[in-house]
Amino acid sequence: MDGATGATRQLAEFVAASRWRDIPTAVRREGVRGLLNYVGCALGGCDDEAIGLAIRVLAPSFGPRQTGIIGRAERCDLFNAAFINAASANVLEYDDIHLPTVMHPAAPVAPGLFALAEARGASGVELLHAFILGVEAACRVGNAVMPHHYRRGAHITATCGIFGAAAAAGKLIGLDPVRMTWALGHAATQSAGLVESLGSMSKSVGVGNAARNGLAGALFAEAGFTAAESAIEGKYGFAAVASDTVDLGKITEGLGENWEILANAYKPYPCGVVLFPVIDASLELRRRLTVPADRIAGVMVRGHPLLRERTDRPDVGDGRSAKVSLQHSVAVALLRGAAGLAQYTDAAVADPAVRALRDRVSAADDASIPVESAVVEVRLADGSQLEERVRHGRGTPGRPMNDLELDAKVGELAAFGAPFVDAPALTATIRDLETLGDAAHIMRMTASS
Amino acid sequence: MDGATGATRQLAEFVAASRWRDIPTAVRREGVRGLLNYVGCALGGCDDEAIGLAIRVLAPSFGPRQTGIIGRAERCDLFNAAFINAASANVLEYDDIHLPTVMHPAAPVAPGLFALAEARGASGVELLHAFILGVEAACRVGNAVMPHHYRRGAHITATCGIFGAAAAAGKLIGLDPVRMTWALGHAATQSAGLVESLGSMSKSVGVGNAARNGLAGALFAEAGFTAAESAIEGKYGFAAVASDTVDLGKITEGLGENWEILANAYKPYPCGVVLFPVIDASLELRRRLTVPADRIAGVMVRGHPLLRERTDRPDVGDGRSAKVSLQHSVAVALLRGAAGLAQYTDAAVADPAVRALRDRVSAADDASIPVESAVVEVRLADGSQLEERVRHGRGTPGRPMNDLELDAKVGELAAFGAPFVDAPALTATIRDLETLGDAAHIMRMTASS
Repeated sequence: MDGATGATRQLAEFVAASRWRDIPTAVRREGVRGLLNYVGCALGGCDDEAIGLAIRVLAPSFGPRQTGIIGRAERCDLFNAAFINAASANVLEYDDIHLPTVMHPAAPVAPGLFALAEARGASGVELLHAFILGVEAACRVGNAVMPHHYRRGAHITATCGIFGAAAAAGKLIGLDPVRMTWALGHAATQSAGLVESLGSMSKSVGVGNAARNGLAGALFAEAGFTAAESAIEGKYGFAAVASDTVDLGKITEGLGENWEILANAYKPYPCGVVLFPVIDASLELRRRLTVPADRIAGVMVRGHPLLRERTDRPDVGDGRSAKVSLQHSVAVALLRGAAGLAQYTDAAVADPAVRALRDRVSAADDASIPVESAVVEVRLADGSQLEERVRHGRGTPGRPMNDLELDAKVGELAAFGAPFVDAPALTATIRDLETLGDAAHIMRMTASS
Repeated sequence: MDGATGATRQLAEFVAASRWRDIPTAVRREGVRGLLNYVGCALGGCDDEAIGLAIRVLAPSFGPRQTGIIGRAERCDLFNAAFINAASANVLEYDDIHLPTVMHPAAPVAPGLFALAEARGASGVELLHAFILGVEAACRVGNAVMPHHYRRGAHITATCGIFGAAAAAGKLIGLDPVRMTWALGHAATQSAGLVESLGSMSKSVGVGNAARNGLAGALFAEAGFTAAESAIEGKYGFAAVASDTVDLGKITEGLGENWEILANAYKPYPCGVVLFPVIDASLELRRRLTVPADRIAGVMVRGHPLLRERTDRPDVGDGRSAKVSLQHSVAVALLRGAAGLAQYTDAAVADPAVRALRDRVSAADDASIPVESAVVEVRLADGSQLEERVRHGRGTPGRPMNDLELDAKVGELAAFGAPFVDAPALTATIRDLETLGDAAHIMRMTASS
């Protein structure tokens, strides 16, 4: 690969040429964790109101029953399945997060692979390999257009996730470098998604489309449907449209040496990542409290200015908005000793005790505190104070979720959205993905009967 | 509608509230012409290689046979039909053009309407009304983000056409203002398409998606699937992402008074609009020639600088690139006395006589010549010269295509792509659209048996 070859083609050549034996052990392991978290999140989200509505709209147009819908009884064509299984994996805001870009790569990348595994067959290793490469493509394209891309309003999980969906599906079906370039080209011209849509169900449309349309891009390319070969770097290409701060070297440099999936994190709580150290500190304070939490007179949270900018929301109306509320997150952690899915429902938001404590939570900026740290101080009715300082929140780079925590999270997700699933068996199967002959087995384990 | 109501909501309210009796006669007439040109273009393009490949990829996932594919025997679900019928209408570059934005509005807007007419039923008037409003929505959103939107690389037919597809489908299914706002919100977050894809088959993916995803946006909204209510004007909304030159007043001012469809033009030739006066002049010169055209020693074309910038391509490799070649267009007009679909095939490009004449065509800028004018000068082997000056090319605002020319064009298109269709009967049916009880009748007339 020389400098004269464009970024689109270089990325395509890398993905097409990659061999399983080139993938380092740590990368394989993170790929398994990413898929495990993906399947868990899709199970947790499969019964969400938005997913039910989407299926109601799409079902009259479903094609043949080629593949499953995670956590549900319906089966449908590849494309609709990719859309729905991406939307459900992301709908709870509990999916993985690539820290340099704030992208959730698995939701767009994984669904097309499972659909292809059912429709055409694939081994566990083949699916895992394609997933790792898809995450790589999505995150590298994201790195190239950040920070301006997201800052202007592009919802990067959708807009860049589609490149990963196309690359992953293209790898699984064995596209050559020319056709892989076209697949990325089809991804580029379909790249869409607005930050403005976050907080409404429409967010799921963007994420679903990224999976669906990326998969379509790979299948179009396979059939000889041509695309621009400079779709990313061209004068009127993706990068020019997507960002005023483009660095194409982020796509092409260190391919096969640096792996973006190693910067992928898994959330311990179904809320904004800046809240993780705040919740950790609040949970620890609850353990230290010697009186009931309703005796708390006030809570002061100090953190990086980004914390207040993103999450200073004392008034929350529903579960969705609670996920970006510092006040709600602190209140449930102190009152319930948990900040899981059950603590971010509409019912949890309406709980009078939670509401009362939310009103007593304040926050202050402290630019000297890093974004993955926080300080939480509780004042009790008797005037005494307790303080807890967390340096690295769980799920942040300094303190990633360990395997046991991740397995427990999958169990929580399955219990929440698809309690009929045998979560321990499913988790064990995904953990052994490298030895699994038929990757579609995982889809069958997630189906409702 | 007051200033405090956002542009998205104002546009939605206008579309939802519009009554047929509010639509001026000239606007209705242009709507009919737009639909006629749309159906003609879809017939012309339905047998294109790209359309055949798209159907090959999508057919294994087709849903129920709810609606037809123009010019073909296949039937499929609403969404796939919308995709394919938009792609075929635009694939030849012969569809309508909204001059202020260079958008082709009918290809994204019309297909969802015909699909709904088949699946749910609609009268001719209902379909026509929805089409006019869809074109209005698409073009107004386009006006608001031009010129920077296109200049940076956004393929506006796809990126803004989707708003029209959503608005039109939403009107046909009777969305209330709130749901219409959501439909536009779903359109915004799905808006995609790159100028870089033009010249490859991938262009059709963008245009097809605009129709498909706009329709989906309306159906999602109908089901109660929420979207951002400030999806266009919001801080992280479409306008902020799409352009550095945003004027939201272009969306909201003069709604119901000024009609964008009146700025819609129909191409007399299947090539770039800047070439129209050049071809008109060349055809007129051919009529005046008293010797065979192969005696031409040289041709000099003078026009607005945009002409050379866009179309100075002496070396063309295939029919697709010939459509933006000044040299090829002049050569076929002079040699064949025509510049229709048959003159822009790969075979026409490879013709040795055409190639020889192409090599003798030059062009020069003249900033004093308006873009819809051109001067063509022919030098013969004996040293004599002929000059033709065209002030308003056919198909430009100063000399729009008249009804007879448009009907003839539909005949040419049908003969090219779907010769089994009874073009005169189809044309007559569309011309009488306001009296047609069942708009789906038009789709049945376009089907291959």
